Amino acid sequence: MPVRHALVTGANRGLGLEFVRQLLTAGDHVVAACRQPGRATALNTLAGEHPGRLHVLPLDLANPKSHAELARELPLVLGDDGRLGLLVNNAGVLHSGERFGTLSPAILDDSFRTNAAGPLLLTQALAPLLADEARVINLSSQLGSIASTTRFGTPSYNISKAAQNMATVLLARALAERGIVVFAASPGWARTDMGGEGAELEPAEAVAGILRVAGGLAASDSGRFLDWKGDPLPW
Amino acid sequence: MPVRHALVTGANRGLGLEFVRQLLTAGDHVVAACRQPGRATALNTLAGEHPGRLHVLPLDLANPKSHAELARELPLVLGDDGRLGLLVNNAGVLHSGERFGTLSPAILDDSFRTNAAGPLLLTQALAPLLADEARVINLSSQLGSIASTTRFGTPSYNISKAAQNMATVLLARALAERGIVVFAASPGWARTDMGGEGAELEPAEAVAGILRVAGGLAASDSGRFLDWKGDPLPW
Ligand SMILES: NC(=O)c1ccc[n+]([C@@H]2O[C@H](COP(=O)([O-])OP(=O)(O)OC[C@H]3O[C@@H](n4cnc5c(N)ncnc54)[C@H](OP(=O)(O)O)[C@@H]3O)[C@@H](O)[C@H]2O)c1
Ligand SMILES: NC(=O)c1ccc[n+]([C@@H]2O[C@H](COP(=O)([O-])OP(=O)(O)OC[C@H]3O[C@@H](n4cnc5c(N)ncnc54)[C@H](OP(=O)(O)O)[C@@H]3O)[C@@H](O)[C@H]2O)c1
Repeated sequence: MPVRHALVTGANRGLGLEFVRQLLTAGDHVVAACRQPGRATALNTLAGEHPGRLHVLPLDLANPKSHAELARELPLVLGDDGRLGLLVNNAGVLHSGERFGTLSPAILDDSFRTNAAGPLLLTQALAPLLADEARVINLSSQLGSIASTTRFGTPSYNISKAAQNMATVLLARALAERGIVVFAASPGWARTDMGGEGAELEPAEAVAGILRVAGGLAASDSGRFLDWKGDPLPW
Repeated sequence: MPVRHALVTGANRGLGLEFVRQLLTAGDHVVAACRQPGRATALNTLAGEHPGRLHVLPLDLANPKSHAELARELPLVLGDDGRLGLLVNNAGVLHSGERFGTLSPAILDDSFRTNAAGPLLLTQALAPLLADEARVINLSSQLGSIASTTRFGTPSYNISKAAQNMATVLLARALAERGIVVFAASPGWARTDMGGEGAELEPAEAVAGILRVAGGLAASDSGRFLDWKGDPLPW
């Protein structure tokens, strides 16, 4: 088996950094994308510990020009015939503190671009570099489940993640002919800057669960919405 | 019973114009909002036929400043104590001809702003002018149903309508304490510029169905996704 290439977005902290760690441990060759590689201390340390197996590249999800630049750079890392066997669309933003009456158009826009349009357009830009039968994991959230929305909590986030879920299903349909499996993964409530200190799960547990789930999926599972244990969530 | 005030967006053509016609016939006082009142020939003719019962005001859904201007103008039409008993968030856009590989960020943005953020932010702007127990109808679509998405068809539209569905549920939660009922209504496939000539339904049939459904809803129905016959759709 040739080494698998994996790309993780928002790789400098939180769940993204944990995905990078676990994929390196599993033997993958990893491309870690983040907004400011120069400041990504943890990633640069990891790169030193895994010579030649971790590359850090710049990516701003909310800026489609940045997607195109990543797609241009990537062949230099993958080699001429290299393809991505795994794409983890992990980067995401949650603007907290919204209330009905003061919802902001700019925050709705930024959340939509980062969480929904971002993963869709990045996957489009990288599609020529995806291997047949690759896996694409879109980090979604229980908060993106319309059916489960019982209160007015974090509207820009809820809305962007519901939009992202639709984008996940559309990507699954678009890439089905190449045997590529795309799914929406809810990591549960994990202890990161976003999840906060009171969260239930260690990032390691959530990420291990999602990678286990991804590894077990068949082509017919493409387009599903599953949590880190593999249980289905309602749209 | 005092006369009910109703506001319809995208009122100059298609389903919006038909909502205006049927609400006038039912005896409502109607505010018809559209992008270019000066060019809204059909609305201006109707206004002449229903003196003092139809006001045409400018509104661009994609521009939140325009929402604020409408909210400022509205009391002049409603009178000091007047409130809206019905808000029909009808305006919407469908950019056709998208294909995987050439999806455009600008089209995703415009669809999101018009179809999802627009109705949410407009409803927020008009909330102080909504009567207790008012009805808010958000025109959604079967194409916004994530569970029903079997092909890569009209992504910017699918995504924006799924996002709008989440916004509908959030609005239902935010306005529940005032007894306001908000729901997502699918008009079926109706013969308008958007639906095309091959569509199954006359606008009159779709609109009559939605108004009948809206009239029959209880507070506990707020946040549901129903078609023009009142049948539930999956998220
Ligand atoms: N933690 C949870 O409990 C939880 C629950 C449900 C879903 N999720 C989802 O899981 C994913 C990871 O969450 P997390 O908890 O690790 O969040 P986090 O700790 O806040 O980290 C977010 C990551 O996304 C990156 N990012 C944000 N906006 C970006 C942009 N425009 N371009 C590029 N990168 C961007 C951040 O980069 P910077 O450092 O440059 O800001 C950071 O690397 C997200 O999609 C989140 O919605 C998390
Ligand atoms: N027809 C169907 O079969 C069907 C099916 C499912 C859902 N729907 C939904 O039903 C609603 C009405 O559809 P329709 O068939 O009547 O569509 P339509 O014939 O294309 O008319 C769309 C209306 O929305 C207005 N509009 C578009 N963008 C706007 C903006 N930024 N600001 C203000 N107004 C804007 C248009 O104004 P201009 O004249 O200025 O462009 C027009 O009045 C839409 O929400 C649509 O998604 C329709």
